[in-house]
Parts: sequence; C-alpha cells; structure tokens
Amino acid sequence: MSLLVTGSIGIDTVDAPSGKVVDTLGGSSVYFSYAASFFTPVRFVGVVGEDCPEAFLQPLHDNERIDMTGLEVREGSKTFRWHGRYHEDVNERDTIAVELNVLGEVGPAIPEAFRDSEVVFLANTHPDLQMEMLGQLSGPKLVVADTMDLWITTQRDSVDRLLKHVDGLVLNDSEARLLAGVPNVVAAGRQIARDVRGFVVVKKGEHGSLLFVNGKVCPLPSYPTDAVVDPTGAGDTFAGAMMGYLADLGRFEPADLRRAIAYGTVTASIELEDFSLRRLLVSRREDIDARFAEFQQLVAF
Amino acid sequence: MSLLVTGSIGIDTVDAPSGKVVDTLGGSSVYFSYAASFFTPVRFVGVVGEDCPEAFLQPLHDNERIDMTGLEVREGSKTFRWHGRYHEDVNERDTIAVELNVLGEVGPAIPEAFRDSEVVFLANTHPDLQMEMLGQLSGPKLVVADTMDLWITTQRDSVDRLLKHVDGLVLNDSEARLLAGVPNVVAAGRQIARDVRGFVVVKKGEHGSLLFVNGKVCPLPSYPTDAVVDPTGAGDTFAGAMMGYLADLGRFEPADLRRAIAYGTVTASIELEDFSLRRLLVSRREDIDARFAEFQQLVAF
Repeated sequence: MSLLVTGSIGIDTVDAPSGKVVDTLGGSSVYFSYAASFFTPVRFVGVVGEDCPEAFLQPLHDNERIDMTGLEVREGSKTFRWHGRYHEDVNERDTIAVELNVLGEVGPAIPEAFRDSEVVFLANTHPDLQMEMLGQLSGPKLVVADTMDLWITTQRDSVDRLLKHVDGLVLNDSEARLLAGVPNVVAAGRQIARDVRGFVVVKKGEHGSLLFVNGKVCPLPSYPTDAVVDPTGAGDTFAGAMMGYLADLGRFEPADLRRAIAYGTVTASIELEDFSLRRLLVSRREDIDARFAEFQQLVAF
Repeated sequence: MSLLVTGSIGIDTVDAPSGKVVDTLGGSSVYFSYAASFFTPVRFVGVVGEDCPEAFLQPLHDNERIDMTGLEVREGSKTFRWHGRYHEDVNERDTIAVELNVLGEVGPAIPEAFRDSEVVFLANTHPDLQMEMLGQLSGPKLVVADTMDLWITTQRDSVDRLLKHVDGLVLNDSEARLLAGVPNVVAAGRQIARDVRGFVVVKKGEHGSLLFVNGKVCPLPSYPTDAVVDPTGAGDTFAGAMMGYLADLGRFEPADLRRAIAYGTVTASIELEDFSLRRLLVSRREDIDARFAEFQQLVAF
C-alpha cells in the first residue's frame, strides 16, 4: 500500500558526549522517510524556508524510493531549527534552542498525486496542521500520528480532536503520562487507547516500547546496545520502519503490529550509531533483517 | 538440586499511594524463599533478634517447601527494620528509616545439613557476610549473589572479592552503573560480566531486565501491569523464582537462564499486587504458569 509521511524537516545542531554536528539534516519526516524506504516506497511531504541550501536534502533526493514531489521550498520563510545537547547519559537531553520558523505557518499542500495514499503517518507537528493534512486525503486505510508534550500542554483540544481521527498514536512514555494524567505508563496507555480507533504505541527509549491493542498490552525491550552516538531521530526512525513494514505488508493485525514494532526497534538501534542520517545512509535492508533475526533470538524464552 | 538462600529478614513499614502497612514481614530471604518454593524446596538461613514475635515468620513456617532449620533467633539482638515510602509514581521510593540491628553483627551459621547445598543465593547483605556464608559450603554448583549501592559505595573491595567467587550476580541498573562507573547500562553490564564467572542480570524494575551471558545481552521487558500496590520485595521475588526454576531444572545454559528470568519476571509481577507476602500467599504455581504463558504470547513477534 502507498505510504505518505508529513512532518518536519530540520536544520539540527547536536552536542553529544561523542562529538558535535552543526547545521545537519534532521526533522521527523526526514528520519521517518529514510527508515521507511528500506521497506516500501515513501511519499514525502514537508516544507523548508528559502534559507535551506539545495544540497541539504540531497540524501533524500538520491533515494529512489522516496518521492519528493511533496517538498515545498517557501519563499520568505525560514527552515525549522533545533539545537539539542545530550548528557553523559545520552538518554537525557536538553533543548538548547528551537526556532519553529516555517513550522509555525500554514502546512505544505499535499500534491494531487499523493491524495489517494492508503497508509499515512502524521509525524510530530502542530495537531491542527496534522488535521489539515488529513483533511486533504481521499480515504486512507491506516492513519497513525505522533505528538509531543508541547502540543499536549498548549493545544490540548486540538490533540483530543486529532485522536478521534487516527487509527494509531505513537508517543513517548512521559507524553503518555501527561496526556492521560496518570503516573503508571500501562494505565496511561490503556486510557489513551480507549480514545483511539486502533492502537497506541508508547516509546520508552532505551527501555523499549508498549503496544496497546484490542485490550492487550504487548511489551518489547529495545535492542541492547552500547554503541549510542546520537539518539536524535531514533523515535522517527522507529516509526518509519514500523509504518514502512505495515504499508509493505498491507495488513494491520495485532501480530503484524508486534512484528512492525520489532522492525522499528532494530532500525532505530542502527540509526543511533551515528549522527544525522549517516548510519542509515550506509545501511541495507539485509543489515536490518540480520539485526531483526538476532533480536528475535535474544528475546525468545 | 538443593537450593539454599541466605539474606535478610525484616520488620517493614511501607507507605504507598494505595495504603500503609506497619511492622509487616519483609526482607530479601523472605521474599526469595517464598517465591522459590513454587518451583522447588528451599533451605532458609537467616537471623532475627529476640524482639521478633514468634508468629511473625509463620507464613514461612507454614510453607512445607521451606526448611526453616537455618533460622536463628539471637538473644540480645534486635531484628532488622526498614521503613520506605513510595511516591505517586511507585517506581520511586524514599527510605525513611533503616535499622541494621542484627544484620550489622556476625552472620547466622549455616546448619550442617545445609552445607552440601548445590544451588545458592546470597541475597543482599554485607559482602563480607556473603563471603562468610559461602565459605561454609562444601562445593556448590551455582552461586548467585545480589548486592546494593550501599556496599558498592562503602565496601568496594569486599564487593570486588565477592564477584570473583560467584557464578552469577543480580543487581539493579543504577547499581550496575555505579559498580562499572559508566552511564550506559549495557556497557556497565558487559564490564561486570567480565569479572563474574558466569552471568550478570541487571534488573530495571518496570522496564524489565538484561541478561549478560557468553558475550551476549538478552533483554526482557517486565510483565506490563497497572495493578502495582507495593513493589517492595519484587526484586527478591524475581530472584527467588529465577533460582527456584534453575534449581528444579538442574541446568544453567543461556536458554535456561532466559526462561528462569521470564519466570522471575512474572512471579514478581504477581507479588507487587499487594503488600508484603499477601499476594504470594494466595497464589499457586498454576497462576504463575498461566501468567508465564500469557507473557510469552505478548512478547513474541
């Protein structure tokens, strides 16, 4: 099935114990689409400002599985920028600076040729923009959204409206607790899952994830690694591989979701071994499959 | 194989969002032995002071699978006491008061009849006491120890000596990071595993565990539950079920360890549904097996 992603494109600066990169390619739809492309073709929708160098998105243009028809370069606007600093324990980070820029404006139009997309991922952005995107589609079969604490805190009504229109929600554990207003993450996920048509995936970073579907809670650990260089984009990579697998399969039963999440887990574990897209750029589908098989062995009991 | 446990017996007071219990039965060897008894007979070694009411340990005396020959009631001494308070998020707790009392004295003697024990668990106590216990055994086949931050910080040389004499170490994630001196828990576990003859299990509470064995790292999530009443003793219950399973099986290959850890995980998830031993006291082996089977289904992909 055709897969569409809309989300952010960012000019990122990352400080990590292992080094620093300045003005590098980032953003939710960038990581998502690259990860998804290992599994299926991807239709990309996103917007940058006129300050964005043409070569900046070259890794996406060079990927023949990513259709960049939906990229808008908006005159008079500036590209989203994010600067984060990771602690010695890279599971913790501070946001040093964030400039919403073009992400604070109206969203990009979805090209006519993309409007029949069957599987859709609304990567993290303002929930009103996510709804606006969704409204341009003719009849998707699976719509999954990501969100973040900023929107849950400041745009709660919009988030609640969005939840009624998606089949799946992906969010991290602190966001799930914030959204549900309960400290236990299992209770939080169960509660959110009652508001969503299909399923909820709660991401716990190094601690794996929880899938809430059909009243069941399916836990999965992360792939254990000490080769973490830069976790930026790991969550979007997770979602990209998960959705890419599902779109390719064209079926979304609970067992399919579990397998999709395992693919998301191992693909994310590869992505975080270097800055930006660097590690994904030198990976092949076989590398992901090999890690998947190893992960399956390690977890089995 | 015969299973021996030595560790603490405590008079616990627990404040939790769900209620409070005062002067209730606790201690590492108490939780351990009760959990292990679902799988195999247990030889219990521990010491209380003369202040300990005779009925206090009745649940252990009533369990025909627990041999209490190794219980010492020491005249002139007082029983170990612990008072903890859990936060609204029960994964966090403060120790309100701790009185080492008899745990600060010489350890209990291991009865002659117990000295041929084949599988041994040295539950958390002073590492010199753990070594002293070990020295009384004639030739155990599997020795596993637990330890804690207090000993790592204040008795580092003793902990290091202990590590050289055990086949397995069980500790929690913050303790693993402290012991190894590195922030990444996978790197920490790998480093500690190089000092131990056999394996290391790093417990991550609600986030499951990591097994380090033969150069591999096997992650397992926790059983997802929102029915947490009191997590006190969950770690010792985990170890008890794990060791009870291994002693009953009499084999300690990596696949056996993974299965043992899964049994530890689900037994702990039952234990924390009520205060003290209450929930275990009304459980049967069939309940554990049913949850094990359910857990296996939820985790499989």
